Amino acid sequence: MSEIAGKMSIQEGAKYLEKPMMGRGILLGGVPGVAPAHVVVLGAGVVGTQAAKVAAGLGANVVLMDINLERLRYLDDVMPANVTTIFSDIQTIRENLVLADLVIGAVLIPGAKAPRLVTKKHISEMKPGSVIVDVAIDQGGCVETARPTTHQKPTYVVDNVVHYCVTNMPGAVGRTSTIALCNATLPYALKIANKGFEKAAAEDPGFGEGINLVGGRVTNSAVADSLHLQLQPLRGRGAA
Amino acid sequence: MSEIAGKMSIQEGAKYLEKPMMGRGILLGGVPGVAPAHVVVLGAGVVGTQAAKVAAGLGANVVLMDINLERLRYLDDVMPANVTTIFSDIQTIRENLVLADLVIGAVLIPGAKAPRLVTKKHISEMKPGSVIVDVAIDQGGCVETARPTTHQKPTYVVDNVVHYCVTNMPGAVGRTSTIALCNATLPYALKIANKGFEKAAAEDPGFGEGINLVGGRVTNSAVADSLHLQLQPLRGRGAA
Amino acid sequence: MSEIAGKMSIQEGAKYLEKPMMGRGILLGGVPGVAPAHVVVLGAGVVGTQAAKVAAGLGANVVLMDINLERLRYLDDVMPANVTTIFSDIQTIRENLVLADLVIGAVLIPGAKAPRLVTKKHISEMKPGSVIVDVAIDQGGCVETARPTTHQKPTYVVDNVVHYCVTNMPGAVGRTSTIALCNATLPYALKIANKGFEKAAAEDPGFGEGINLVGGRVTNSAVADSLHLQLQPLRGRGAA
Amino acid sequence: MSEIAGKMSIQEGAKYLEKPMMGRGILLGGVPGVAPAHVVVLGAGVVGTQAAKVAAGLGANVVLMDINLERLRYLDDVMPANVTTIFSDIQTIRENLVLADLVIGAVLIPGAKAPRLVTKKHISEMKPGSVIVDVAIDQGGCVETARPTTHQKPTYVVDNVVHYCVTNMPGAVGRTSTIALCNATLPYALKIANKGFEKAAAEDPGFGEGINLVGGRVTNSAVADSLHLQLQPLRGRGAA
Amino acid sequence: MSEIAGKMSIQEGAKYLEKPMMGRGILLGGVPGVAPAHVVVLGAGVVGTQAAKVAAGLGANVVLMDINLERLRYLDDVMPANVTTIFSDIQTIRENLVLADLVIGAVLIPGAKAPRLVTKKHISEMKPGSVIVDVAIDQGGCVETARPTTHQKPTYVVDNVVHYCVTNMPGAVGRTSTIALCNATLPYALKIANKGFEKAAAEDPGFGEGINLVGGRVTNSAVADSLHLQLQPLRGRGAA
Amino acid sequence: MSEIAGKMSIQEGAKYLEKPMMGRGILLGGVPGVAPAHVVVLGAGVVGTQAAKVAAGLGANVVLMDINLERLRYLDDVMPANVTTIFSDIQTIRENLVLADLVIGAVLIPGAKAPRLVTKKHISEMKPGSVIVDVAIDQGGCVETARPTTHQKPTYVVDNVVHYCVTNMPGAVGRTSTIALCNATLPYALKIANKGFEKAAAEDPGFGEGINLVGGRVTNSAVADSLHLQLQPLRGRGAA
Repeated sequence: MSEIAGKMSIQEGAKYLEKPMMGRGILLGGVPGVAPAHVVVLGAGVVGTQAAKVAAGLGANVVLMDINLERLRYLDDVMPANVTTIFSDIQTIRENLVLADLVIGAVLIPGAKAPRLVTKKHISEMKPGSVIVDVAIDQGGCVETARPTTHQKPTYVVDNVVHYCVTNMPGAVGRTSTIALCNATLPYALKIANKGFEKAAAEDPGFGEGINLVGGRVTNSAVADSLHLQLQPLRGRGAA
Repeated sequence: MSEIAGKMSIQEGAKYLEKPMMGRGILLGGVPGVAPAHVVVLGAGVVGTQAAKVAAGLGANVVLMDINLERLRYLDDVMPANVTTIFSDIQTIRENLVLADLVIGAVLIPGAKAPRLVTKKHISEMKPGSVIVDVAIDQGGCVETARPTTHQKPTYVVDNVVHYCVTNMPGAVGRTSTIALCNATLPYALKIANKGFEKAAAEDPGFGEGINLVGGRVTNSAVADSLHLQLQPLRGRGAA
Repeated sequence: MSEIAGKMSIQEGAKYLEKPMMGRGILLGGVPGVAPAHVVVLGAGVVGTQAAKVAAGLGANVVLMDINLERLRYLDDVMPANVTTIFSDIQTIRENLVLADLVIGAVLIPGAKAPRLVTKKHISEMKPGSVIVDVAIDQGGCVETARPTTHQKPTYVVDNVVHYCVTNMPGAVGRTSTIALCNATLPYALKIANKGFEKAAAEDPGFGEGINLVGGRVTNSAVADSLHLQLQPLRGRGAA
Repeated sequence: MSEIAGKMSIQEGAKYLEKPMMGRGILLGGVPGVAPAHVVVLGAGVVGTQAAKVAAGLGANVVLMDINLERLRYLDDVMPANVTTIFSDIQTIRENLVLADLVIGAVLIPGAKAPRLVTKKHISEMKPGSVIVDVAIDQGGCVETARPTTHQKPTYVVDNVVHYCVTNMPGAVGRTSTIALCNATLPYALKIANKGFEKAAAEDPGFGEGINLVGGRVTNSAVADSLHLQLQPLRGRGAA
Repeated sequence: MSEIAGKMSIQEGAKYLEKPMMGRGILLGGVPGVAPAHVVVLGAGVVGTQAAKVAAGLGANVVLMDINLERLRYLDDVMPANVTTIFSDIQTIRENLVLADLVIGAVLIPGAKAPRLVTKKHISEMKPGSVIVDVAIDQGGCVETARPTTHQKPTYVVDNVVHYCVTNMPGAVGRTSTIALCNATLPYALKIANKGFEKAAAEDPGFGEGINLVGGRVTNSAVADSLHLQLQPLRGRGAA
Repeated sequence: MSEIAGKMSIQEGAKYLEKPMMGRGILLGGVPGVAPAHVVVLGAGVVGTQAAKVAAGLGANVVLMDINLERLRYLDDVMPANVTTIFSDIQTIRENLVLADLVIGAVLIPGAKAPRLVTKKHISEMKPGSVIVDVAIDQGGCVETARPTTHQKPTYVVDNVVHYCVTNMPGAVGRTSTIALCNATLPYALKIANKGFEKAAAEDPGFGEGINLVGGRVTNSAVADSLHLQLQPLRGRGAA
């Protein structure tokens, strides 16, 4: 689903940059002779990568930021030429937010709350009519001024910056999402059906990490930390 | 402005394919493991070319149709690999409309009415929830069921197909459009300022063709044909 | 050698699609104005990946199917834009076989028999003159109607579908194959020469897995399963 | 049809480079770790361009030779990175033939005999098992040792070089060829039907040039030169 | 030779951006995690196009500026994604010079003096250690502070901006230049040898335009204007 | 820093191929109609990969050599089409050195001396005026004739081959290097600050391997081997 959210975030951002949508009245990809938009993607995981790829496909100048250098190296190998990878720190984030027409918040830590990378102060320094899409909203958002919205009323404006913070974004493209979800979960469903979840988890630590709750016990450490509950790991879970 | 309309047409089409917008609930570019949308672009002029390029950039499978083989050859050289050029005739149009998730009507003949390539019957055979964007609406539209709409209420539904027929589409991205328009018209404005339009037109036949009305006379043949008025060509206008 | 078989499979498929070869009389890559062929590649391992890359290079529309989502994600990053990745299940396989001009069977499980993904019924529903190349024929084939052929008489026809099932395909490009084989085996040969195979296998589990028979004992589990013989693992073989 | 012949020439060349076909036993595109074939394309018109594009798509190293510098510049803009354009002269032709695994003769002058760029001596210096495809064979061939062959027996060997000189190559992919031919000729057929050929030719010099014979008179200068007949131009034919 | 100068200009610019060469100490293409240089190319003719292509190939963010919108459209079709085309006017030039690490002056009008697009004031506003390469120096330069230099001492510094203004740049890569020059001039030499220059010029207006001086008379209008001499056109020279 | 050295190596090589720099007078990327340079990169690690990418971006024909087949496969997926991967052995190295205009020595083994792949004899067989850049010079060089030079006097000539062997190449682009170094080391610095190096090394074997000396003891085996000192591994260091 992350891939869908990543791709949709640019599609939505492009739409809300239109003037009747309260945006700057800018075309994401520019046209020959007119510069394209500056898109900043915070986080180079699955969401951020797909967002960057789509924005580049539309013709925008894209900056993709992360602190995982190994990941940035790989992306430098496979991304289109109009994606620049930047190591993310307080200074580079601020420098890029000031220039941005569209910002995608894509910093998600599995099961944990998203870190607040974009502050109120950052928002106040952004260009009027710029758009921010916070894909991390389901984990609390990585933008300080973000609060959950719906597909019925997807945006609101803070300090002249349009905020799009729809929870469950992929719901809008249900046909694509349903197929994608089946594809991703089928192997796990088959394993559970064949072996029972305890055996499946014991054999495959990655599988076990996906199990958050067992009979009322919290078995995933990120979830436990985030909700301040006690962690009770699964037996037989691998060390890795 | 054609380039802007072409690029916007895909952006709008992608948005209205979403379920809350009455579309099929499909993500234009698909995701790994799920097929992308099938986009049909009718007309390979400036509008259609930009539309095809953007749709391809988003990851869709694109069919670009035209009857100008020379143009299709050039586009085959420069378009991304997921754009297929098809020679347009009654049969190939129908074959492709039946498969389409998104159709862009981009058949414009300068100054003349657009030909009606997509009929009511075609529309009735399209998939429910598919979207059609008629960029030719300013010249009467190339879709039989098209009627002008506005940015306030951009779409309506006929036979389960969402129609987007906003006149003056580039108005929504006014900042980009204004710069593009200045770039395109500046050289002509300078010529008129320096020479007067009569001398400018006499020296440059292409310039002369852009002059539609002079002191009440219709000087452009396409305009004259289209409005059933008498043509009175400019003196000194080139033969080409 | 898998890479060579993968690349060759498309070259052969393109050739046997020609009319004098009993094929549909279709050019794989199309030409400007005429749609290219629809190529379906079953399996996204080394064979299938190379096949997809070459078919895309020729200009075909390619569908690459697999059940490994992680692999499909990587391929989505690095494949040309005219390759679509589809999660493989009974329904998507059938949908794509019906449309296919060329099918590449590339589902190989190391040392084991290939699963029969394409049935007699599928073949009967394919277009007349379409071509199927079963690269998995050395492990029994992933097409029900496949039986081994030779470079001398490489094809036969079942239900109007041309079958190409040459065992040892890379033999036809011996010069390239010989170099490739040396490159791939040299490091192992050096290890055996320097350490003896037992020590080499003990130190490098991946190496040990490549040893199928030792003094009459079957030491590889996939081979043992496939031939219904008893497995006698190497001592000192790693756990991975 | 030139586009089809160009694309097919590589497909055939790749096939006849196989060992059982008398070729060098080389895979056109190489594999990781093994160098690809060296393909030389003589002539950068429609045939040569398509041949170069397909060979590059397969992964070969391609040299595309011509004497039209303007054309080479355009091709340098749009060709894949593994196509090198070289200005064609006696020395560069020879240097490249010596290195070639596959040579495509694509020097066609409309209506005239093809120039003999590749001589017997060149052939004798080529690598054993290399392949030469003379697409210009319908106009007499641009290879001295070329003589027409058929799809039934397409090749013969001279000085260890495999010659493929099938006349009417596109006949083998009849389905694609028929559609392509219709697309290309339809506009002319419509003009003749609407206006008669004389009026059509008078209005459109390019059209007039396509008329070779009128009531027994040779009206095309290249045809007249080539067959040593007297030229009797069409009246009303443009000067261009 | 323009192509060589264009390509070399980036190679030189990259070198003189190094710290020991007095430049900013910046790597043109950046590395994963560090932003690349901002390269501004003034003029999108042959020189500017090649410069932009090479800079993009090195990984820089490139802005290519011109006032010919038709040309910008074509370049938008064929340039890599990290080249942005911008319509050139006083404001956009200044905006981009301020951000530039490397500026290429590539505004050449055949035979005429280059316009002074970059003024002393612009230079004073540029970043310390940035580099400017004025390829137009042979026609007087398009940078106000430019004065001719040599391969022996190629650069000097004005207002902390490194100036590279070597006349006859292609001389440094004599081997490539000699071949390129032969290729470009051979057709003309053959025409002169076969027909004499007067007949050749009469038949081919483009050829005639290349003749600047005949028996002491200035026959080319741009040259005449530029040197304040009287123009005496060739007889039989075409109107175009 | 390896990435910077890799990218710079091509930039330097291109510069020193110029005639006034003692090189062959060749433009790395060629121009339309003139073949580009042949660049050989020895070693496909980070340095070699970046070098190959940049050389390809400039338009050269690039051969990238290594003995790690898995790595060559990945590079074949992500490199531009004008990079050919070749499995490196005595014969292929020699074949390619003879043809090379520019050679990049990029064979580095972390902490150990670089192997001497290019011998005096190889150098004597290379083309006059060709250039060799030995990036491995900091570990002793992989070219027999290499000896350390400085940015002040970066090159010398042996057997007509220009040698560029500057130690600490990235120093010339200090601004880029400083940022890159911070990005790469920041996570380690934070770990040391938070945990002390002993705990950090115990928890993360990869981290531990980066520690070469502890209180006078050599803790890294490659360093110990290379300097013939005794190895005293860190306690708590992982087995991997």
